[in-house]
Amino acid sequence: MNEVEIGLTKRATRGYSLDDVAVIPSRRTRDPEDVSLAWTIDAFTFDTPVIAAPMDSVMSPATAIALGKQGGLGVLNLEGLWTRYEDPSAVYQEIAGFTETEVTRGLQRIYAEPIKAELIAQRLQEIRESGVPVAGSLSPQRTKEFHETVVKAGVDLFVIRGTTVSAEHVSQNREPLNLKEFIYELDVPVIVGGAATHTAALHLMRTGAAGVLVGFGGGAASSTRASLGIHAPMASAISDVASARREYLDESGGRYVHVIADGGLGRSGDIVAAIATGADAVMVGSLLARASEAPGLGWHWGQEAHHATMPRGYRAFVGEGGSLEEVLHGPAHSADGRTNLMGALRHSMATCGYSELKEFQRVDVVIPS
Amino acid sequence: MNEVEIGLTKRATRGYSLDDVAVIPSRRTRDPEDVSLAWTIDAFTFDTPVIAAPMDSVMSPATAIALGKQGGLGVLNLEGLWTRYEDPSAVYQEIAGFTETEVTRGLQRIYAEPIKAELIAQRLQEIRESGVPVAGSLSPQRTKEFHETVVKAGVDLFVIRGTTVSAEHVSQNREPLNLKEFIYELDVPVIVGGAATHTAALHLMRTGAAGVLVGFGGGAASSTRASLGIHAPMASAISDVASARREYLDESGGRYVHVIADGGLGRSGDIVAAIATGADAVMVGSLLARASEAPGLGWHWGQEAHHATMPRGYRAFVGEGGSLEEVLHGPAHSADGRTNLMGALRHSMATCGYSELKEFQRVDVVIPS
Amino acid sequence: MNEVEIGLTKRATRGYSLDDVAVIPSRRTRDPEDVSLAWTIDAFTFDTPVIAAPMDSVMSPATAIALGKQGGLGVLNLEGLWTRYEDPSAVYQEIAGFTETEVTRGLQRIYAEPIKAELIAQRLQEIRESGVPVAGSLSPQRTKEFHETVVKAGVDLFVIRGTTVSAEHVSQNREPLNLKEFIYELDVPVIVGGAATHTAALHLMRTGAAGVLVGFGGGAASSTRASLGIHAPMASAISDVASARREYLDESGGRYVHVIADGGLGRSGDIVAAIATGADAVMVGSLLARASEAPGLGWHWGQEAHHATMPRGYRAFVGEGGSLEEVLHGPAHSADGRTNLMGALRHSMATCGYSELKEFQRVDVVIPS
Amino acid sequence: MNEVEIGLTKRATRGYSLDDVAVIPSRRTRDPEDVSLAWTIDAFTFDTPVIAAPMDSVMSPATAIALGKQGGLGVLNLEGLWTRYEDPSAVYQEIAGFTETEVTRGLQRIYAEPIKAELIAQRLQEIRESGVPVAGSLSPQRTKEFHETVVKAGVDLFVIRGTTVSAEHVSQNREPLNLKEFIYELDVPVIVGGAATHTAALHLMRTGAAGVLVGFGGGAASSTRASLGIHAPMASAISDVASARREYLDESGGRYVHVIADGGLGRSGDIVAAIATGADAVMVGSLLARASEAPGLGWHWGQEAHHATMPRGYRAFVGEGGSLEEVLHGPAHSADGRTNLMGALRHSMATCGYSELKEFQRVDVVIPS
Repeated sequence: MNEVEIGLTKRATRGYSLDDVAVIPSRRTRDPEDVSLAWTIDAFTFDTPVIAAPMDSVMSPATAIALGKQGGLGVLNLEGLWTRYEDPSAVYQEIAGFTETEVTRGLQRIYAEPIKAELIAQRLQEIRESGVPVAGSLSPQRTKEFHETVVKAGVDLFVIRGTTVSAEHVSQNREPLNLKEFIYELDVPVIVGGAATHTAALHLMRTGAAGVLVGFGGGAASSTRASLGIHAPMASAISDVASARREYLDESGGRYVHVIADGGLGRSGDIVAAIATGADAVMVGSLLARASEAPGLGWHWGQEAHHATMPRGYRAFVGEGGSLEEVLHGPAHSADGRTNLMGALRHSMATCGYSELKEFQRVDVVIPS
Repeated sequence: MNEVEIGLTKRATRGYSLDDVAVIPSRRTRDPEDVSLAWTIDAFTFDTPVIAAPMDSVMSPATAIALGKQGGLGVLNLEGLWTRYEDPSAVYQEIAGFTETEVTRGLQRIYAEPIKAELIAQRLQEIRESGVPVAGSLSPQRTKEFHETVVKAGVDLFVIRGTTVSAEHVSQNREPLNLKEFIYELDVPVIVGGAATHTAALHLMRTGAAGVLVGFGGGAASSTRASLGIHAPMASAISDVASARREYLDESGGRYVHVIADGGLGRSGDIVAAIATGADAVMVGSLLARASEAPGLGWHWGQEAHHATMPRGYRAFVGEGGSLEEVLHGPAHSADGRTNLMGALRHSMATCGYSELKEFQRVDVVIPS
Repeated sequence: MNEVEIGLTKRATRGYSLDDVAVIPSRRTRDPEDVSLAWTIDAFTFDTPVIAAPMDSVMSPATAIALGKQGGLGVLNLEGLWTRYEDPSAVYQEIAGFTETEVTRGLQRIYAEPIKAELIAQRLQEIRESGVPVAGSLSPQRTKEFHETVVKAGVDLFVIRGTTVSAEHVSQNREPLNLKEFIYELDVPVIVGGAATHTAALHLMRTGAAGVLVGFGGGAASSTRASLGIHAPMASAISDVASARREYLDESGGRYVHVIADGGLGRSGDIVAAIATGADAVMVGSLLARASEAPGLGWHWGQEAHHATMPRGYRAFVGEGGSLEEVLHGPAHSADGRTNLMGALRHSMATCGYSELKEFQRVDVVIPS
Repeated sequence: MNEVEIGLTKRATRGYSLDDVAVIPSRRTRDPEDVSLAWTIDAFTFDTPVIAAPMDSVMSPATAIALGKQGGLGVLNLEGLWTRYEDPSAVYQEIAGFTETEVTRGLQRIYAEPIKAELIAQRLQEIRESGVPVAGSLSPQRTKEFHETVVKAGVDLFVIRGTTVSAEHVSQNREPLNLKEFIYELDVPVIVGGAATHTAALHLMRTGAAGVLVGFGGGAASSTRASLGIHAPMASAISDVASARREYLDESGGRYVHVIADGGLGRSGDIVAAIATGADAVMVGSLLARASEAPGLGWHWGQEAHHATMPRGYRAFVGEGGSLEEVLHGPAHSADGRTNLMGALRHSMATCGYSELKEFQRVDVVIPS
């Protein structure tokens, strides 16, 4: 371990972010056209390893469908605007119109509206009709309340996503979600997280999860570190969770649980670094919030931003960077690493001589000083 | 030791600040409601481990009372405005009105006004009448002069606070304060500091102190490092002083001296990091100066700012961030980590699976690169 | 190796940029006049170790000639404006006139114009007539298509330059360039790159190259790191490639392949650091784009800036810093390290007591913290 | 040694600046009044360890006298404005009036005026008449030309100061200054530098120098690093030169050569750090240029700024920070660490429990991360 002595009684691990890491080509190069970005989880194969973050600024039923058609996986936030409001268009307008001083209180008020079970069913049905894989997400707190609705409505993949999700939640006053039982009963692949350590991820893998989200929501619009003092530098977290994947693969006699980087992906180069440090796929927020099809009208915010008593996220302006197709597959007409994300990943892999995502996890990396 | 070779003749210790440290959740989570923030020192138990810094921008008799009612400990600066002026309201207005070029000379003039023993007695009496624990502070230089006044007026806890306080002050021209004797005679729990090394803290503990303040006044409004070249990165200092706590606990056969982080606490995440690296409680300045009840009118300054010949602190604008209750317990309507401080600490501990402050000192931490 | 553990499954090398490195004089000093900057590659000796980057903002046929007369080597980009347009003057004006929002699309359009073989021949002929050594560059992708034109037109040195060039390019759909065969047939010294590791460079050296370009185009106007996640800190890359030079020198029984730093040279101090870490010569872009003779009209851009689907470079404003002679040999009338580049190198070598470039590769260096 | 591997062929030393270092008080404190700042070199004892840098913005004959009366040592630049111009007042006005674009050319022109031997004699005489110790400086290049003038005029201490001065200067075209012979003949204590390594300093000590200047002119107004790639982080350089002091003390059987930090002293905290890492005294530039008696009219520049062909320094605005007495001894009315320099040093030493400069070289230091 990469240990640091803070003082006489306390040691720490040193952690690296995706920004800290760069890949370094070596003796072989390859044609970008020969690179495959295919990613298979359970019975589902996707052309690209991109999952949209279940955030209201990123995903509507329509954009989940559009992303599915572009080869990625759209995940709808089942406790967001689309399941609280019959027609959230006016709400999106309102959010886009808030001043900086109004926005946190405004979001707190807007998200005080109750979630409707019938809207969950209706939104999932809209996606199903399009023919793309259907995926929705709930926080651990809401999963107990709404999972039967979700099961009845039918999903192909289910995501349980919170700042931190553990396999062992302790509570004095209520019966906590038993993840293992729940996943067993649900009978569809479940992706669960965030987690950021070998131990936490290993325990999540043992619940039967098909994938683990790496990260604590440390994205562009989060203040989790300033507020809670919690932070997991992504490159190190991915590598530590990949180590749990390896241990669990052995102890389970061959179950491969996917490692999905969730947070800190602000440029295509960060997606490259996430795969290079061990991720199988990436959950992308702000980069997709820039697509013209994204519902957020150029703004981006997460669940933490509207917490009723302890908001710890911001509404961030991300602007518009082209169609979803351009964002994912180009062509790009700017050089900032925010469009043609898959072209960049493909090009980087080719330049380093790799043709498959799984192999690219072994690429040489450098930490610039 | 985490040693660095500066050159062929000089070695240094590497030190980490609270900003450098983040906590990292692992396999267990917990409900925030199940977390206790109770802190006991000597015969006093507080609902929260928060002590207000004895600074004129933070504490008036009224805010000391208000903080006591919110579960913290207010400490009145007994050599500040409230003991120099019968009614300091106009002085606070004057300080708030200074331009940047006027302010240091202005503070030097305002604090040239002599301290009145009768005002010390009167202010402490005001606090006592409210029923909250009574605490006041003096610098080591003033302790000899005014401690009898203080003892006569009666305090529950006494704080001796300077940039650096040692158990062994050497002077050629006067009899220095004998801390050990003084603490023995005073017969109330004494918190003393700043100190930042194992050795310095151990010697302070041996004087009979109930608590040691960690830090050299390195807060938001200080220029001690630029002026004196003195600096102690807080996370390392806390851990080193916690190591003295452990040694003294053993050598004294069980006296537990409290380690209190004093300085560098600009966000709730810093409070989390202070406990995580070994602090029992925190002494908070600028964060409380933002409460609407704070006397500083949106400004914050410390004792160093008005030194007659070598000022080494600034008047900093901190603005207003809600009522004292909101600052401590929320609800927050902004995401900057400066309100709902205790909610954030509670939430962070719960996310990491801890329910008691003392246990949380063992949480895993990471140093992002 | 200077290894870093990113996490439990991934290690990285720590890399240093030229900015990170400073040379440190020691016991001997020397007169600057006694320093030689002569550099010999194959049959060509140059008064200075400066090669101009084959970028349209830096090199026209006229500036290639001017640089040759100043003691350096000008390399014309054979797939740039001068071989796409009969008279590119108006195109340069257009590029200089683009707004920031227009520029990437504008460059994409301008460089969509086909390359003309006859213009390649004509431009090389112009340079030849001046009597200076003739050098041109192609990307690996274009080399197959145009190298016969180049050979027929005649060059003294040939440069194959791409973001990454490897000795082993793999393609499923076309016959890739066989570098070794190509270099053997070409029968003039070939400089090839970028490369940044010992292995990659060693394989390039084995193809018969006379020089290897170190770097991945990480200059002032590049966003390769943000886009592709690819980055090679230059000081470390130079040293690693110099290690390949040493290995190949031994295995080949004495062939000395030149190590040429290409990228990250923004000040004369960076040129010093490049030689100090092992480079034989430097390929300079933005610093020469500032010469009044440079064709770019105060702007600088590279090949990556106009990629049709994944641009990853910018047009950067560099302004004008004096004549080519002043930029190279002074006198300077500003202190920013961008004029009198050779005077600075000479002065630095003298101050450290060295009189030859090759010896200066051994100078002591420091990494300021 | 604190070694870093840049790449496979190159190692570096890691170096620390004064900014990187902080002192850390421990178990004992002391009254500031009990601290002595006395510094003795050869037959001269000064109340403070402050030498003024021989720069035209800092020293005139009048300020050299004033500094002597305040307990420091003023050194006049014998190849500056005061020995080129009969009355330089108008020249100072002109320099203060230059725009940023004019200033380098303007300085080059102003310093093209020849040095007059008779003015050297006259200026030294002015200082001598005041009764303070007389000190002047020349660069190594000018020492041969003017040292007889200096000897005839009479100095108490002589300074030979260049960016880098070595004991062994090699030249093909002229007889270089033989430092050892020269110092022997001169028969007054000579302070010489800059140097920054153990070896370089040891060789300078063997020439008979009474003091060695540490640093390469890396002050506030220098661009030596950007231009020449030369840089010596001061804390490490001081410690390395202090190691030479120790070795030479032994090999010479007791000659103590003083280590004088020259450069990087922007705040009183930097002076503290210089002593703490091994310096006996400090040569101060920009901090003294702020005194109202300084001739520079609020501007500061060094010799490098007017080099005829390769200027590598700037004219920096430093403003005015009070009288020379206030700058050195206070009282201060601002908290920025630029006034009451000696009060700050005294206070810092007292806080750390030291009463003599020599002992303070042993104080504990920390490198904040």
